[in-house]
Amino acid sequence: MRHAEKLLGQVENYLAQIDMPAEPELLYTPITYSMQGGGKRLRPVLLMLSYSLFADDCERALPAAAAVEIFHNFTLLHDDIMDNALLRRGKPSVYAKWGKNVAILSGDAMMISAYQFLGRTQTQNLQAVLSVFSETAIEVCEGQQYDMDFETKQKVSVVEYMRMIELKTSVLLAGAVVIGAMLGGASEEDCKALRRFAIELGLAFQLQDDLLDSYGDERLGKAIGGDILEGKKTYLMITAMSRADESQREILRSTHLNSSLSDEEKIARVKAVYDALDVPHLTQQQIAVRFERALSQLDTLKCDPTRVDSLREYAKSLMGRNK
Amino acid sequence: MRHAEKLLGQVENYLAQIDMPAEPELLYTPITYSMQGGGKRLRPVLLMLSYSLFADDCERALPAAAAVEIFHNFTLLHDDIMDNALLRRGKPSVYAKWGKNVAILSGDAMMISAYQFLGRTQTQNLQAVLSVFSETAIEVCEGQQYDMDFETKQKVSVVEYMRMIELKTSVLLAGAVVIGAMLGGASEEDCKALRRFAIELGLAFQLQDDLLDSYGDERLGKAIGGDILEGKKTYLMITAMSRADESQREILRSTHLNSSLSDEEKIARVKAVYDALDVPHLTQQQIAVRFERALSQLDTLKCDPTRVDSLREYAKSLMGRNK
Repeated sequence: MRHAEKLLGQVENYLAQIDMPAEPELLYTPITYSMQGGGKRLRPVLLMLSYSLFADDCERALPAAAAVEIFHNFTLLHDDIMDNALLRRGKPSVYAKWGKNVAILSGDAMMISAYQFLGRTQTQNLQAVLSVFSETAIEVCEGQQYDMDFETKQKVSVVEYMRMIELKTSVLLAGAVVIGAMLGGASEEDCKALRRFAIELGLAFQLQDDLLDSYGDERLGKAIGGDILEGKKTYLMITAMSRADESQREILRSTHLNSSLSDEEKIARVKAVYDALDVPHLTQQQIAVRFERALSQLDTLKCDPTRVDSLREYAKSLMGRNK
Repeated sequence: MRHAEKLLGQVENYLAQIDMPAEPELLYTPITYSMQGGGKRLRPVLLMLSYSLFADDCERALPAAAAVEIFHNFTLLHDDIMDNALLRRGKPSVYAKWGKNVAILSGDAMMISAYQFLGRTQTQNLQAVLSVFSETAIEVCEGQQYDMDFETKQKVSVVEYMRMIELKTSVLLAGAVVIGAMLGGASEEDCKALRRFAIELGLAFQLQDDLLDSYGDERLGKAIGGDILEGKKTYLMITAMSRADESQREILRSTHLNSSLSDEEKIARVKAVYDALDVPHLTQQQIAVRFERALSQLDTLKCDPTRVDSLREYAKSLMGRNK
């Protein structure tokens, strides 16, 4: 983990040095607020770790690392408007603090800023890097649209759900590692393996997020059961629906709307159905399968195996499996 | 004008061939709707005209021309949310037709799509072209923020107003001609002259737009007097405020809020003050000065003078001065 921590330090330093213009204040202040809002810096660290599989001068990857982090924060700004989300990482969202118009326009400026950082990357291969970045970005938008579509859709299949979280979460991790690898001079084959690694890691990570929302983990800083109270179609809910009998299905469908129940009662009632249908265990199995698939890709890389260790350890720590 | 019309035809053909994915429908259908919404295709035609000052194979400039047009349409999608505008070019805006969330996300996808087209440009100089495009894009966002700031600001000076419309309107025209010129292989000096040309042309064009909104022109397809009814701080209003005595200032400030007056009465009352203060004539003077400055830049270009004629004639036609 020492290498990943060093890279995280480099990323944080680089991001802290970004100097936004002073005016117009309502365009730039929210950008600084958003970028200083914390977070794991997962995407830039993955980009740097991927780069350092193939090259040593990690500073060269910093502008691209900043680009993926700025792009990620841009998606949060706009998602928070669409989801009417007032909190982000325990603080008021830009949308809550400054309103819809500021969140739209500052988000737009962040996306442009992401492209500016990407454009600063020293590479012979800017056209290809740009193409991966844009393809990734458009897929993230597709994922967000599917996510919104699902809110009003009666029935969502597990396959549809997995495709949605692949687009909404995995592809940006994949874009990050592929761009890092391309800048480091990786072969096309290694780029593909790293892409598959990140896709599976992202799925495992998102399913774990779904599981922890209902079954808890204090690291998340989220109220437990938020997904259940919103009636959100998570992996747990969709799996449960596909296995439920009619009376269980009715509980899953309507409990979050039942105003005669307290929040605790709603959560307990839905979780009782999940437990009866073995949903937590099935979810854990799916997480394990995805995570194993991710790690197995790393064994196929044609780079120095000792370099792969840092990336493998980082992936394990993300999943809380580093002990 | 024949050359500009030929280029417009090429632009329209190229844009018509853009094939958006079918799914997710709510992401891509609004993009096609927006791109087919008409408009003069001013920015891509300027880019192509600028390119053809220096090179012959105009097809090579088409992806970049599409990029600036897609970017422009993206700004309209998001501006319409921020301005709560239900009509765009005489049809329901994307915001009115599909709602806020769709307009936000489709707009985001359009901006990414603009970068994708720009990235397809065959050039040795992609980094520089990308940098001009992003710098332009961020300035357009700054212009939109200043425009929104002005709505709640008590006093806006003429200088502040000119700077705002330079950012909101002129810089994208400038970005278009500079990118066209760069792709065509123009010298840095010619790029700078073309930039100044477009900045002044954009100012003349926007001031003419302000004038026509209050004093009419059927080509616009806009209700005459819309700016007055909204109490908008246009060049006319700001100039009038700077010259008005206290009683006139009160009329300018409060007429649009006076619910006892009909729309026609409001418009007549404000225009009477404009007329008394010589505002239409002063605006026409300012338009003429800006437009002359624009044209004078074209005389400094180091390219074949007969090639400049098409651009000059196109600029004149934009200002309705081609007869």
